[in-house]
Amino acid sequence: MINKLTAKIQKTKAPIVVGLDPMLGYIPEHILRKSYGELGETLEGAADAIWQFNKAIVDAVWDLIPAVKPQIAMYEQFGIPGMAAFERTVAYCQEKDLVVIGDIKRGDIGSTSAAYAAGHIGKVTVGNHVFSPFHEDFVTVNPYLGTDGVKPFLDVCREEKKGLFLLVKTSNPSRGELQDRLIEGRPLYEWVGEKVARWGEELMGGSYSYIGAVVGATYPEMGRVLRRIMPKSYILVPGYGAQGGQGRDLVHFFNEDGLGAIVNSSRGIIAAYKQEQYASFGAEHFAEASRAAVEAMIADINGALEAK
Amino acid sequence: MINKLTAKIQKTKAPIVVGLDPMLGYIPEHILRKSYGELGETLEGAADAIWQFNKAIVDAVWDLIPAVKPQIAMYEQFGIPGMAAFERTVAYCQEKDLVVIGDIKRGDIGSTSAAYAAGHIGKVTVGNHVFSPFHEDFVTVNPYLGTDGVKPFLDVCREEKKGLFLLVKTSNPSRGELQDRLIEGRPLYEWVGEKVARWGEELMGGSYSYIGAVVGATYPEMGRVLRRIMPKSYILVPGYGAQGGQGRDLVHFFNEDGLGAIVNSSRGIIAAYKQEQYASFGAEHFAEASRAAVEAMIADINGALEAK
Repeated sequence: MINKLTAKIQKTKAPIVVGLDPMLGYIPEHILRKSYGELGETLEGAADAIWQFNKAIVDAVWDLIPAVKPQIAMYEQFGIPGMAAFERTVAYCQEKDLVVIGDIKRGDIGSTSAAYAAGHIGKVTVGNHVFSPFHEDFVTVNPYLGTDGVKPFLDVCREEKKGLFLLVKTSNPSRGELQDRLIEGRPLYEWVGEKVARWGEELMGGSYSYIGAVVGATYPEMGRVLRRIMPKSYILVPGYGAQGGQGRDLVHFFNEDGLGAIVNSSRGIIAAYKQEQYASFGAEHFAEASRAAVEAMIADINGALEAK
Repeated sequence: MINKLTAKIQKTKAPIVVGLDPMLGYIPEHILRKSYGELGETLEGAADAIWQFNKAIVDAVWDLIPAVKPQIAMYEQFGIPGMAAFERTVAYCQEKDLVVIGDIKRGDIGSTSAAYAAGHIGKVTVGNHVFSPFHEDFVTVNPYLGTDGVKPFLDVCREEKKGLFLLVKTSNPSRGELQDRLIEGRPLYEWVGEKVARWGEELMGGSYSYIGAVVGATYPEMGRVLRRIMPKSYILVPGYGAQGGQGRDLVHFFNEDGLGAIVNSSRGIIAAYKQEQYASFGAEHFAEASRAAVEAMIADINGALEAK
């Protein structure tokens, strides 16, 4: 799957991922009205509106991008119908040949991590039958419990040729309270980065490992350090656009081959029609606004990489 | 909800929680046969078997205990039907007036944590209607992202009078890789414990805070230290029985009032009939074996507390 991600990035010339994190406030009125009209102002109605919104955006941008990253919390908050909309979104994006990164940030002790891994990127067995319930291609994982909480995910990746992005350094304001604390003179996130590199060594695709890292875009300098610590890991970089990062801040996250990083934008793409810059599309043409925002993001990042 | 937990512990004289973490391998053949017969060897069949198994155990033990802790991973691995069985289990335990601790270990940046908090212990609004999708009473939360990842959960707790257990120190073998690392001479988990105490100060029930901590039973001495750092926080202690802890190892997790800790056992209770000690019940009477195991656990812990 990491080879597929690399191939898709090379084909689209777009080291980006679109975050499918639909809040109801992003969804145009005409979609909400239709879904609520059919299913009521219910969890089912909300989940249907999310699905219709996602589908329109995916239909508008799929040919430009290698991957999407649905944030499961935005679906899970709407209960069972929300989870069903998540799975339907994963399946639809895979039909469009997109790589799907499930942003689930799970992580627990061994047997529990094994259950998460089975449900999201692996298989569960019921009697003589086998199922892949949520079937993402990659998932994000929280490493706070250490190796044995991560190992069940690694085992499933090896078997299924799927991948992980481990949280190393997030982009939220209080990320530093724990992640930046110094241990033997080096911040905690560097130690986690070293673990990611080590976990990834045995799970190599071609030039890159199945095991990547999440590193926020907020401090470009950290990109340089972590890039060195994890030379063969893809870095998933949230924080583009809405969270403040721009193409020129992100060049250090990439390797010399122009690969090794994939930059996420969520609100900046899926709610583009709400920004002044794309307001002329109007709510009816929200998906076209998203396509224009994707094109602008690709141009910004590629421009910065060329100027590097 | 923390006051309800305390009242229920005092009434049952049982500072314990039963972990409803059903693996298919724990479920007796006659239940599996019935569920698969009705729904096939499908995710629906597996989810039904889990639900039937849980219901029988809850019916057998509810009057002895204050709380249950369903581990969501064990449900989530069976996809949408599994998540529905989770919600049904939560609802059923609440009908039995049990406090429900959803072991979900979620945690993300602000807006995403807010979505998890809304979906699990709060409310979501769809048009003019309000829903509580998973409606647990407490949830477990991973603090790796720091205060702003936790704050949305705190806000919901304040509004809904619900509670949290933050991961401070887990009981898995590699917990130490990050959690034990020294920062200014003190292990990371102590710093996290201090944060828990601070976050909890503004969310007090009677004598205890709505904000508790998860601390594994593996090293009794840590219980003493963390008890002092977080005097007003309940400590949820996994690792009893199957993971090796016993009543006498747990006394330091309790305050002088005999409160402040709640000890979890999962496999040791729900799969008791598979242990030599309770094998005479047989698979048909698995729920009675669970009741006997609950009684033994209560006696062990209370005996240790009296001998303290």
